[in-house]
Amino acid sequence: MSTTAAKGFTAAGIAAGIKENGNPDLALVVNRGPRRAAAGVFTSNRVKAAPVLWSEQVLKSGQLAAVVLNSGGANACTGPKGFQDTHATAEKVAEVLGESAGEVAVASTGLIGTLLPMDKLLPGVETAAGALSEHGGEKAAIAIKTTDTVHKTAVVTSPNGWTVGGMAKGAGMLAPGLATMLVVLTTDADVDAADLDKSLRAATRATFDRVDSDGCMSTNDTVLLLASGASEVAPDQAEFAQAVRAVCDDLGQQLIRDAEGASKDIRIDVINAATEDDAVEVGRSIARNNLLKCALHGEDPNWGRVLSAIGTTSAAFDPNQLNVAINGVWVCKKGSVGEDRDKVDMRFREVRITADLAAGGETATVWTNDLTADYVHENSAYSS
Amino acid sequence: MSTTAAKGFTAAGIAAGIKENGNPDLALVVNRGPRRAAAGVFTSNRVKAAPVLWSEQVLKSGQLAAVVLNSGGANACTGPKGFQDTHATAEKVAEVLGESAGEVAVASTGLIGTLLPMDKLLPGVETAAGALSEHGGEKAAIAIKTTDTVHKTAVVTSPNGWTVGGMAKGAGMLAPGLATMLVVLTTDADVDAADLDKSLRAATRATFDRVDSDGCMSTNDTVLLLASGASEVAPDQAEFAQAVRAVCDDLGQQLIRDAEGASKDIRIDVINAATEDDAVEVGRSIARNNLLKCALHGEDPNWGRVLSAIGTTSAAFDPNQLNVAINGVWVCKKGSVGEDRDKVDMRFREVRITADLAAGGETATVWTNDLTADYVHENSAYSS
Repeated sequence: MSTTAAKGFTAAGIAAGIKENGNPDLALVVNRGPRRAAAGVFTSNRVKAAPVLWSEQVLKSGQLAAVVLNSGGANACTGPKGFQDTHATAEKVAEVLGESAGEVAVASTGLIGTLLPMDKLLPGVETAAGALSEHGGEKAAIAIKTTDTVHKTAVVTSPNGWTVGGMAKGAGMLAPGLATMLVVLTTDADVDAADLDKSLRAATRATFDRVDSDGCMSTNDTVLLLASGASEVAPDQAEFAQAVRAVCDDLGQQLIRDAEGASKDIRIDVINAATEDDAVEVGRSIARNNLLKCALHGEDPNWGRVLSAIGTTSAAFDPNQLNVAINGVWVCKKGSVGEDRDKVDMRFREVRITADLAAGGETATVWTNDLTADYVHENSAYSS
Repeated sequence: MSTTAAKGFTAAGIAAGIKENGNPDLALVVNRGPRRAAAGVFTSNRVKAAPVLWSEQVLKSGQLAAVVLNSGGANACTGPKGFQDTHATAEKVAEVLGESAGEVAVASTGLIGTLLPMDKLLPGVETAAGALSEHGGEKAAIAIKTTDTVHKTAVVTSPNGWTVGGMAKGAGMLAPGLATMLVVLTTDADVDAADLDKSLRAATRATFDRVDSDGCMSTNDTVLLLASGASEVAPDQAEFAQAVRAVCDDLGQQLIRDAEGASKDIRIDVINAATEDDAVEVGRSIARNNLLKCALHGEDPNWGRVLSAIGTTSAAFDPNQLNVAINGVWVCKKGSVGEDRDKVDMRFREVRITADLAAGGETATVWTNDLTADYVHENSAYSS
């Protein structure tokens, strides 16, 4: 269902020949209206890919007619020529759809530092436009995969007659400031650009921004939300925001489960923090601790590494009041040895770490995965 | 030569039975005077092991008669009992040497969250005291090893008649705020506590603090500098500071070369930064990028990952002015594709990354190593 679950959208995914292996590599999502409000959130990496610079600019109007996405090349660190290529791609989409390039967002993913093969990409846009369909969402989701083992889609339908759906790609270089990902969400609810932006930022802040696979932030992260208004329903803002968050949460979970080489999905709940920012800082510090991620891979409930990670943060806490549970067993109490660590059952894929800061009433959940030899292999054996 | 290279010191390293495999695990370094000025630098992790809390307190007097160090247990996150054990260890050393416990520093390394076997450690102190020798420096250096494959010592002798020497342990959990390490430096120069402190802080800031193996900061990092004054020479302060830095630099290099599972030593020179802090921030960000560390392991000069890491910092730079060289080949120029990456020779163990921020005249060098399947194996196969 993906980006075509909501009424008013067509999509396509085709093989343009950007990837040398012949796999699908070009996706097109088109908003047929009647409205075309849109919002976007982009990487906070200061080294931004050409398509990010382009799409940020385009989104200032609060309107999008279409999004074109390619895998097989990130078009990042490609200088003025890279930006010209992004511009040309948007112009080509505008030409075949009879729209303005100023309402066409572009997203790219793949290797940094190489130019896109425009002689394949531009004809690919024409092919994709010819393949547009109200059932094209799955194919679009497949075409944006890089090292993803599965394509990722999610849909929430409101009993009040509108839908939010979407697709995501990402399997590594996942870290806050958005996981490395391309995400396109669509809705047939009638929502203006300002409310779309509000809902999208609130959702990404609590979902994608708290998925931290390997601490590495991409140059290309892009999350877009397009509204067609085709349901003719103006939703309750709170209900709409909740639906957008649910779809982002679902896609974020799929990203972490497909993280490169991972054998454990690790949920980190930081509780009793003085502030939500403290909770997030602590959660991320734990999520980025390579030694802990190795230990969990080895099914070792090494809580000392959790405390060591907490100790590097600026969050409010007293080291002698910290409590840590792993899979429900409080192995650390008041900063020292707690229940017997042999009680911790580490056999399952999901590992749950609870870090109790004993400093207030705020909480946050951050997701990560273990660090494995497969991760090293995937990221050392070839350029990506 | 190690800690007994300088006159006025004796040392010993013995097997007390703290390690189950029977390897040496207890070291004692004693300052025979005539003076006993001392300085120390400790982990900035807010979760500090009992021996760190103890030794920080002891150092306030600016005097140390002895240092006792154990491997086989970190005595971190061990609560009030752990602190009592550290105190009892210092008291035991004081008793056998006829000194005050208030001038005995304690350092521990090994697994977090388990109590030390005091029934073995305290008799071990007596054994060590009986084994003290002016040639005991090597044995002391061997006794503090954990996952180290080699023991680490360094010595600088001044033509002006004084010496600085020392030992270090550390092979993982290496990150700023001191690499995870125990280091004891000794000198027979006649230097007061304030000048020792000044020299030591300046040295660690530019050496150990810029060694970042895996981004993980320990609860136990301790660097001590003891001066016996036995040479009867009061050195030039600048020359002395330079000698301390040279010994720290040498030991820091040995730490990175022995990092767990590493196959590449990576030197990161950040040049033309607006400030030294900017240069260090950028160097650390590059040093901590798991994706880059995997790529370098695979001998892939993936400069896009360098730019991506620079982009996550708050340093002053213009993305379109960044230049990156790998092993002398400027593969990235002005934020885009530079010389042919196939020109980069990646066959050797040392990899040199030069990141030119084009924003000023400051520089810093940060050392790290690659991320390998062996690292994952070492840190997942057993608790440490």
